[in-house]
Amino acid sequence: MALIDGARLLADLHSLRDFGRFKTGVHRPTLSDQDIASRRWLASRLEAAGLEARIDGIASVYGFTRNAGKRLLIGSHLESQNESGWLDGALGVMFGLEVARALPHLPIDVAAWVDEEGHYGNFLGARSFLGEVTDSEIDAAANRTTRESMRDGLARAGLAGVPRVTLDDADRYVGYLEAHIEQGDELEAKGLGIGVVTSIVGIWNFRIRFEGVQNHAGTTRMAIRKDARVAMTRLANRIDDTFPSVIAERSVWTIGRMSLDPNAPSIVPGGAEMNVQFRDADPAVLDRLEAHLRSLVAEADAAGPCRVSIAVAAKTIPKVMDGGFQDALAAAAGHRAPGSWQRMPSGAGHDAQMLALRMKAGMLFVPSIGGISHHWTEDTKEEDIVRGCTVLADAAEAILSQS
Amino acid sequence: MALIDGARLLADLHSLRDFGRFKTGVHRPTLSDQDIASRRWLASRLEAAGLEARIDGIASVYGFTRNAGKRLLIGSHLESQNESGWLDGALGVMFGLEVARALPHLPIDVAAWVDEEGHYGNFLGARSFLGEVTDSEIDAAANRTTRESMRDGLARAGLAGVPRVTLDDADRYVGYLEAHIEQGDELEAKGLGIGVVTSIVGIWNFRIRFEGVQNHAGTTRMAIRKDARVAMTRLANRIDDTFPSVIAERSVWTIGRMSLDPNAPSIVPGGAEMNVQFRDADPAVLDRLEAHLRSLVAEADAAGPCRVSIAVAAKTIPKVMDGGFQDALAAAAGHRAPGSWQRMPSGAGHDAQMLALRMKAGMLFVPSIGGISHHWTEDTKEEDIVRGCTVLADAAEAILSQS
Repeated sequence: MALIDGARLLADLHSLRDFGRFKTGVHRPTLSDQDIASRRWLASRLEAAGLEARIDGIASVYGFTRNAGKRLLIGSHLESQNESGWLDGALGVMFGLEVARALPHLPIDVAAWVDEEGHYGNFLGARSFLGEVTDSEIDAAANRTTRESMRDGLARAGLAGVPRVTLDDADRYVGYLEAHIEQGDELEAKGLGIGVVTSIVGIWNFRIRFEGVQNHAGTTRMAIRKDARVAMTRLANRIDDTFPSVIAERSVWTIGRMSLDPNAPSIVPGGAEMNVQFRDADPAVLDRLEAHLRSLVAEADAAGPCRVSIAVAAKTIPKVMDGGFQDALAAAAGHRAPGSWQRMPSGAGHDAQMLALRMKAGMLFVPSIGGISHHWTEDTKEEDIVRGCTVLADAAEAILSQS
Repeated sequence: MALIDGARLLADLHSLRDFGRFKTGVHRPTLSDQDIASRRWLASRLEAAGLEARIDGIASVYGFTRNAGKRLLIGSHLESQNESGWLDGALGVMFGLEVARALPHLPIDVAAWVDEEGHYGNFLGARSFLGEVTDSEIDAAANRTTRESMRDGLARAGLAGVPRVTLDDADRYVGYLEAHIEQGDELEAKGLGIGVVTSIVGIWNFRIRFEGVQNHAGTTRMAIRKDARVAMTRLANRIDDTFPSVIAERSVWTIGRMSLDPNAPSIVPGGAEMNVQFRDADPAVLDRLEAHLRSLVAEADAAGPCRVSIAVAAKTIPKVMDGGFQDALAAAAGHRAPGSWQRMPSGAGHDAQMLALRMKAGMLFVPSIGGISHHWTEDTKEEDIVRGCTVLADAAEAILSQS
């Protein structure tokens, strides 16, 4: 049985919150000055824990064990969404640090994968570790808010020319564990303290574009308008009205981004664009939702007067977590939180879905108060944080003892 | 009968297009460097025409006649919307210059009212001339795109501390004439070359705000979401579906501006806002549309789960053009364009609606090709431009001869 230091863990989490603190949350976008400072701080904490710390050429932070044997990798990410919560990502990294400190005799590596939150790209840190990010992908990456190139951001961080860490031999690792806040309200609603993740949902993103004719909002008769806004809000409502009849029990869909061109009160918009995203753990459900969405787009385009087109923005496939890792987490949860845990899918994407492509992976959830995340009010009870880390440490010890 | 020089008029219009040229249109926002340069150029053209030119402390440009007698004021505006057309405003100013040149013996003043397009405020130039703009309103004004303060823009233009021209005695003027492109397709659709404006519509603008709860787009179940985007697009559709049953024949409504907070694909929006605008020449119709809009907002707010609120952004009252001026324009049109003109309301707002508060005012329209305006493809046939200026000159001569 591993013995973690709850007070030390909480103190480190609170220290990390000071990098980019925003109200009770953080604003710590990838490669912002506060993000870079948090990476240096993490490296110093990993060194202090006896690990060999390294910030690689894409700004992921590693703490390598000095112990012999096949290793267990534990991690998550440091950066946050804009003006967002203090635990999303940070919790998993600090759990990794604390588990490595609690089990100093075991071969445990800790990783903070850069840019899980997608300020520059798509799981850049985890994918870079797997050897799936080319130099030209980094050359082309730019911050979605500031438009700064990733190369300039890395240069600001003092990382220009620094080599990247890659997984040369997957056999070096027993596998990967990641802890995360649930980000939903299911554990809290059921009064549970631990979730053992069974799979991570697939996330399918589409860009839908509306082409009308820009015109004057006073002199253009209603009958001859080709108003891209009208076309967009009409399709958005068709999606809201019809998706309930095609989704599965846990499917979700979101239109979180919309834009009008030129977006002025006195101009009939000539162009519009929206992002439609849906998620499910079942590939057949994802296929069904895409077919339905494409039929709605075709119907809207045929109805006119605006042209409506759809393009895939990004798709991730659902990832099933390793059965043995699930069992190890479940056994630890059963011991530390008897009657207070369940197995459940993850509705959010996580670095674990990338690592799962090359090694066994497992994930643990702790509850989110009110189900809130991606907002500065995001929080988790201290007792749930400490218990979650204890369960992760027990599972890590069990997995390494069985390997 | 006045004799204008069509070639000279067209040459000046083309010269003016070179200030901020954008494709075949112009990008000449108020107090942009290109806008300031165009004001200096206009002042030199007014001086060359024998007028006393002046750029006042708010950057309106005036050409004062040196002739005796009660004056006729002719004008419009120089600046453009962003990446917009070359004739909107510019045409009316160049008509004023050309009419003053064609009638050098008559007391005609020319004005280019600053910021009709509203980059900084609401008809700032025309209202300043009427004495309705305080220094503190200018102090508070900032460019809606660049956020530069108007004071800084005026200082860049070398106009800090320059006094403003104001209308001390309305009796100095017979009245005000303004020519403008129609910006709609009515004249073109009917094969007509001249529109005599009967009234300028009232424009009522409202801001509608939606308050939900920001959350994660993967982990938040559909059933518990309070998605501000859903509330906004649902209300937009209710407006589109129900306005046709409450409007009058020429009413128009537009939702040209929408925003989501935070506007990211993977975040359920916690806030949203849209601008709803409608226009009509009849105050009773405007009242009816406002009552209907407010009932839709109340209904949406009551339905939940988001809070929906409405605030007035701006309202202008409809302005009837002077009957005698309408008749003078109609007589000139009947002579120069027999069978090819009509009386009609203006669906767009114009400086003339401000001047009409203090003096007689009249407006003339020339056709817009394809009804397009507020876009760089905006255009008018050369023959329509020259004929429109001829009609305006004849009407000016007739009005001054009768005063």
